[in-house]
Amino acid sequence: MDEYFPQVSEIEYKGRESEDPLSFSYYDPSMKIGGKTMEEHLRFSVAYWHTFRGDGSDPFGAATMRRPWHSVEDPMERAKVRVDAAFEFMEKLGVPYFCFHDRDVAPRGNTLEETNENLEEITSLIKEKMNDTGIDLLWGTAQLFEEPKYVHGAATSPNPDVFARAAGQVKKAMDITQELGGDDFVFWGGREGYETLLNTDMEFEQDNMARFFEMAVDYADEIDFDGQLLIEPKPKEPTKHQYDFDVANVLAFLRKYGLEDHYKVNIEANHATLAKHSFQHELRYARINNLLGSVDANQGDKLLGWDTDQFPTDIYTTTLAMYEILKNGGLEPGGLNFDAKVRRPSFEPVDLFYGHISGMDAFARGLEAAHRLLEGGEIEEFIEERYSNYKEGIGKRIVKGEVDFKDLEKYALKNDEIKNHSGRQEKLESILNHYIFET
Amino acid sequence: MDEYFPQVSEIEYKGRESEDPLSFSYYDPSMKIGGKTMEEHLRFSVAYWHTFRGDGSDPFGAATMRRPWHSVEDPMERAKVRVDAAFEFMEKLGVPYFCFHDRDVAPRGNTLEETNENLEEITSLIKEKMNDTGIDLLWGTAQLFEEPKYVHGAATSPNPDVFARAAGQVKKAMDITQELGGDDFVFWGGREGYETLLNTDMEFEQDNMARFFEMAVDYADEIDFDGQLLIEPKPKEPTKHQYDFDVANVLAFLRKYGLEDHYKVNIEANHATLAKHSFQHELRYARINNLLGSVDANQGDKLLGWDTDQFPTDIYTTTLAMYEILKNGGLEPGGLNFDAKVRRPSFEPVDLFYGHISGMDAFARGLEAAHRLLEGGEIEEFIEERYSNYKEGIGKRIVKGEVDFKDLEKYALKNDEIKNHSGRQEKLESILNHYIFET
Amino acid sequence: MDEYFPQVSEIEYKGRESEDPLSFSYYDPSMKIGGKTMEEHLRFSVAYWHTFRGDGSDPFGAATMRRPWHSVEDPMERAKVRVDAAFEFMEKLGVPYFCFHDRDVAPRGNTLEETNENLEEITSLIKEKMNDTGIDLLWGTAQLFEEPKYVHGAATSPNPDVFARAAGQVKKAMDITQELGGDDFVFWGGREGYETLLNTDMEFEQDNMARFFEMAVDYADEIDFDGQLLIEPKPKEPTKHQYDFDVANVLAFLRKYGLEDHYKVNIEANHATLAKHSFQHELRYARINNLLGSVDANQGDKLLGWDTDQFPTDIYTTTLAMYEILKNGGLEPGGLNFDAKVRRPSFEPVDLFYGHISGMDAFARGLEAAHRLLEGGEIEEFIEERYSNYKEGIGKRIVKGEVDFKDLEKYALKNDEIKNHSGRQEKLESILNHYIFET
Amino acid sequence: MDEYFPQVSEIEYKGRESEDPLSFSYYDPSMKIGGKTMEEHLRFSVAYWHTFRGDGSDPFGAATMRRPWHSVEDPMERAKVRVDAAFEFMEKLGVPYFCFHDRDVAPRGNTLEETNENLEEITSLIKEKMNDTGIDLLWGTAQLFEEPKYVHGAATSPNPDVFARAAGQVKKAMDITQELGGDDFVFWGGREGYETLLNTDMEFEQDNMARFFEMAVDYADEIDFDGQLLIEPKPKEPTKHQYDFDVANVLAFLRKYGLEDHYKVNIEANHATLAKHSFQHELRYARINNLLGSVDANQGDKLLGWDTDQFPTDIYTTTLAMYEILKNGGLEPGGLNFDAKVRRPSFEPVDLFYGHISGMDAFARGLEAAHRLLEGGEIEEFIEERYSNYKEGIGKRIVKGEVDFKDLEKYALKNDEIKNHSGRQEKLESILNHYIFET
Repeated sequence: MDEYFPQVSEIEYKGRESEDPLSFSYYDPSMKIGGKTMEEHLRFSVAYWHTFRGDGSDPFGAATMRRPWHSVEDPMERAKVRVDAAFEFMEKLGVPYFCFHDRDVAPRGNTLEETNENLEEITSLIKEKMNDTGIDLLWGTAQLFEEPKYVHGAATSPNPDVFARAAGQVKKAMDITQELGGDDFVFWGGREGYETLLNTDMEFEQDNMARFFEMAVDYADEIDFDGQLLIEPKPKEPTKHQYDFDVANVLAFLRKYGLEDHYKVNIEANHATLAKHSFQHELRYARINNLLGSVDANQGDKLLGWDTDQFPTDIYTTTLAMYEILKNGGLEPGGLNFDAKVRRPSFEPVDLFYGHISGMDAFARGLEAAHRLLEGGEIEEFIEERYSNYKEGIGKRIVKGEVDFKDLEKYALKNDEIKNHSGRQEKLESILNHYIFET
Repeated sequence: MDEYFPQVSEIEYKGRESEDPLSFSYYDPSMKIGGKTMEEHLRFSVAYWHTFRGDGSDPFGAATMRRPWHSVEDPMERAKVRVDAAFEFMEKLGVPYFCFHDRDVAPRGNTLEETNENLEEITSLIKEKMNDTGIDLLWGTAQLFEEPKYVHGAATSPNPDVFARAAGQVKKAMDITQELGGDDFVFWGGREGYETLLNTDMEFEQDNMARFFEMAVDYADEIDFDGQLLIEPKPKEPTKHQYDFDVANVLAFLRKYGLEDHYKVNIEANHATLAKHSFQHELRYARINNLLGSVDANQGDKLLGWDTDQFPTDIYTTTLAMYEILKNGGLEPGGLNFDAKVRRPSFEPVDLFYGHISGMDAFARGLEAAHRLLEGGEIEEFIEERYSNYKEGIGKRIVKGEVDFKDLEKYALKNDEIKNHSGRQEKLESILNHYIFET
Repeated sequence: MDEYFPQVSEIEYKGRESEDPLSFSYYDPSMKIGGKTMEEHLRFSVAYWHTFRGDGSDPFGAATMRRPWHSVEDPMERAKVRVDAAFEFMEKLGVPYFCFHDRDVAPRGNTLEETNENLEEITSLIKEKMNDTGIDLLWGTAQLFEEPKYVHGAATSPNPDVFARAAGQVKKAMDITQELGGDDFVFWGGREGYETLLNTDMEFEQDNMARFFEMAVDYADEIDFDGQLLIEPKPKEPTKHQYDFDVANVLAFLRKYGLEDHYKVNIEANHATLAKHSFQHELRYARINNLLGSVDANQGDKLLGWDTDQFPTDIYTTTLAMYEILKNGGLEPGGLNFDAKVRRPSFEPVDLFYGHISGMDAFARGLEAAHRLLEGGEIEEFIEERYSNYKEGIGKRIVKGEVDFKDLEKYALKNDEIKNHSGRQEKLESILNHYIFET
Repeated sequence: MDEYFPQVSEIEYKGRESEDPLSFSYYDPSMKIGGKTMEEHLRFSVAYWHTFRGDGSDPFGAATMRRPWHSVEDPMERAKVRVDAAFEFMEKLGVPYFCFHDRDVAPRGNTLEETNENLEEITSLIKEKMNDTGIDLLWGTAQLFEEPKYVHGAATSPNPDVFARAAGQVKKAMDITQELGGDDFVFWGGREGYETLLNTDMEFEQDNMARFFEMAVDYADEIDFDGQLLIEPKPKEPTKHQYDFDVANVLAFLRKYGLEDHYKVNIEANHATLAKHSFQHELRYARINNLLGSVDANQGDKLLGWDTDQFPTDIYTTTLAMYEILKNGGLEPGGLNFDAKVRRPSFEPVDLFYGHISGMDAFARGLEAAHRLLEGGEIEEFIEERYSNYKEGIGKRIVKGEVDFKDLEKYALKNDEIKNHSGRQEKLESILNHYIFET
């Protein structure tokens, strides 16, 4: 077999060199943190699309990344070579999972039938590789946004032929996800939204989206898919408004149509910031609504207004993310999928190692810091104490539903002096720094 | 009686002058549009806080607006003079409604009891004035954000004494709203949110917020308040994150706690844009979820990141807003409340007239344009046609729930050629301009 | 000759139909406004790249626009057919100008020499077409951002071979612009900026950019190019930071290197809003610094954070733009270039007509409104009056430079009562609406 | 003497307690880094306005911070007590500098003369305290934005009486800054900008601003003020557009009026992010243009759109800031002024200690990390190597100005194969993390 990737070349960092990519990372898969290994906590996954299909093109520029597997002429041959390269990379990198869209792995044919045959053939090859390497599928998904037919959306297209086509495509994607033992199946509503309200029947489109999600639940039942179904929020891009704007928008939708027990969310850091939320906010909101399913681990640039999908390197973000994830009891059967791409100018193959390592390192440091934070308990105790008056007296009666406005007015009329306490934000931020930096 | 306001001085516009403020406005209350008068459609309301309490101070500057009624020494006297000035202004302006917070109209006393007495006394005076002038109360609300006791929120405060105090205050505000025949009662969650998640139990706070809203429903029932209860979304400011972020966030909350039949939303244009939504988006989303209750008619500056509360003058925005409102069958019992303030440099009393007139003019033009748009029917017909394939064949079966993924896959496998049509956004935008400008 | 475009099909607007695209537009080229025709005022131009090369692809989706001239196999044949289609479109539309990048019109060859030969051949063809149709070249430019070699910038690349290549490419582009009688030559610094400061010597890069601009001035002199050289500001995208962030950034740069007499700016509306400026702000700033050269007439979506390049339809924006342009004495030798693309879902050829017509209509209405505004004179008189105290007394002495801080302190010590006047923003906005809507 | 402040109460962090505030901070004034002490490097300063006048009020809420010195009835007595409290705090905290506006320290009188007398009296008291404590004045400034007279700006007001008043006020503020041995004098153009272009003569206003700055230079000369004059950029807030938008806008202005040798900039982190720049960008841009004078050390919230003035706690930001500052050879005679306020809910006096300590800690860690980064040299070497081809061959000739477009075209025609190298952003970000976390 050819080799497509070098071992990661040396990060010439204070003179250390190594053959093993992970030796440069802070991440140590087997290190134990609170009873589980880092690998079990973090459940890292490589994104097939960015890493093995990404070519560095952007709206103003052509491909800068000339991978060997991009230049194979025949589409099916190219797909096979890509599978080889992908598993070579993932094995060298040492990650346990990957994620993919149906259209990432196999080429379209002239008909849906042919496309499906292509997909089946490549799926078999992937299955072999998974058996050989022990690398597992975190989740599968259907790519419902690139082809011109999805120009007006998929389940929300004004064209029922498109709805039908999307249904057929998702069915097949669920089949292969099932076949490959995927832990989850993700729906990112690529173009489920609108460009202008002037031509859009938003109510009808959302009803159709709900019909689609109901069919997906039924089909998952039918094939005994026991993975988790996940919806991935994003506020905008490619469309002006995406219906799955943020976790709360998804929740409002799920509850409206009685779907809240069947879906959780896959939260992407960069999508959170595009919605003007912190990543932690979205994780917290999902967690307390029992919706936190999985994570797309990347980061955006808060000074830019589009989805940059950078590898995560900010330890504050990863610490607070892991804090929410630890409090969620982990993400399993979800995981941390690097939905991230190397920058266009980072066009050499070795940059794929550097990118993933920078992300694994950042989450490993974040996991440790979050663990220390929870072990230290200062934040938790502060919060416990802060709300403690709801455990007695009038507070307890409020929580128990024993009082109404009239009772509370009576109480208030006798209680003109109200004593509040500082929220101590500056101290808490300082404590956070202490926990992050005292390794 | 003293006069606090001049008649609006002349807008020296092409030589026209008049004693009557409205003569400068495009707005003509008695003009009929589609069977109702403009006044009935628009239900304009003056915001007591901005117009009669606003003084032009901002975070970097002191008051520039020295109103005569600001300088009365004794607080109760000042409150009374303010009532006089308010009704004089509203009568001269010719608007049918006003809105107020409890704390806008009467001063705080040393105790809640005294505060309530002050409020009752001023309420009586207001009632008289309403009877004299025929001006009605669109909605009342309780001001739960200015006082230091609400520093950590009201219903979401970690301090149950604050929850109780807020409950007592809302009870009283509902009482006086009822007494004054208010059509609605509004909840804007001034500081219901957080500054940092480091000190916040978001789940507990939202549960408490729900408890509070449940008590409000019970109390409204108890006093036979037959107005509409309204929640006003806002994404941020004053806190870093407000729980009622946007209409969808409010809806997710209401559905979670089974409150969706008891509350509608009061949508503010500027709050929509702070959440990175168009005003029309929020109106549409509310409308199709049966949540559209009332509107705070102002506008923000999309290049700035805070709530500027400007008088609405953009006719595109008012046209598309009135389009949603007409399709909603109007707003009644809600209305269009000018939650808007004259700019700090517009410190002369006459600017209050100019501001309101600019807003009434903008909505009158918008109403006419929206009416023409609906009468013309081109947009509606385009949309009808665009989704028409869902009325027959596979589309109809999808909508009726007669097909599943397997049926649709079969259909799709036989249907490889999919024909879509242009979304025609540029043409539709051009049509919109034709309707707006062909008066 | 084949026809690639239908006549614009009917905008079925209130029953009117026509063979002539412009008959649906408000724009009437021969209408006189203040002594010049609309055509002379507006100097509309079609952008070759968006209109004849655009295919509707975006970062998440493939081409939706299957133009006949995209599918010609041979690159040079394709380029020729594209020229045919372009001039057919422009003639049918009735615009007097077009703009292009070197790489828009002719394909790259295997060597720069071959590329230049291709360009020369197509240039000849274009010249013929220009002679036949009377359509002129507003400006030419070199495309220095799409090819992988420009991944790190062109003049600011860390690779001098790239600097040299860019120089050679600009030289050739200036030659053909000269040959085609172009009125201007534009520099948009496609990737002149940085992705991260961690790898960037900003000072050296800006020095090199200055060297490049100096060489361009020298070469223009050498070939007696008497057109205007223009720099186009943009704050971000594709890079994280573009050096030509806004007009002021460009001005600071030009002044630093003594280039301010040799360059003006080409201001794009969407770039202004990405820099968080209003379009009018950038035009005004350029105008008062004698920098206003030409305009890219499009619009963005202020709720989105990327360059959407929509056709301009907002009459407020076009009115205030034309106000600045009229006060500038027009744009000549610049013009209004529609750097705008039909939305991805507007994939039918006729949408290209709708898009351009919507833009021409918007600027025609804006021109009329701006002209009325200036004729009416209310805004101008308000401003004149507002600053009039600087024409006498202490104000005049300040302006003449006759006083210093000590003199002014003396004056101030005797002058404790200061009387300001309202800025009247609400009234002025109302007046603006009157002028815009009273056609 | 009364004590207004407790010693900082214990950050109960892993059981450590202390009487000495700094013992909880990572900051150690006497620690040597590269030949200077931390104190010499950092030159920390307390902002008189936020820390001793701030009361926690915001646009939606009243004061939460009831400091003892706020409640003294008589204005001059209050001012004196505030001076006591300020020096007590600064001494306990252990910072070497403070900054103030004229109006922070002494109350306005009925006339400018009386105001000046008040200011002189308090200045004497401050001078005594400075002598007693050894605390120095980093910079003084005049507060030209709070008073209603400055509603339309100060030097850019349409009212020359306001220009004169501002001149008198700045003259006095320069006098007392001189008297107190201030190292710098700062101009923040509080309302030098506009709310709407509809009423604004931008050119005239900027000319006047230049006249004002010229007079300031002359006056500084006249009184032999040998401190640095500094302009502080901010893009917006309180006005819609502030003329000193960012460092480049300031530079364009300074160069236009020939003032670039007389002023440097005081860069505030939060102002940088409001202009959509990174803090490092603004520091870098200033540094390479020889403009970097001083720093307002705070941080904003990139998800919010207003100036939050939070204490800086993000170590990435402080590291990259200190990297630029070290490369600038330090900031002297400027420094790091904490233009930061404790959050409204952090209303207890001890929070002032926590806030400042969190900021000092963050900059101390940042200084160390930046020092390690420079010592390690990996970033510097990467950049050196990246541009090294400009030291020889065609690169060298470009830099020397020995070639023109024709020479470069010839070179390019023979040089079709261009080889670029990866920008290595991911690796560099990873290296940055290694340096930040390997203490």
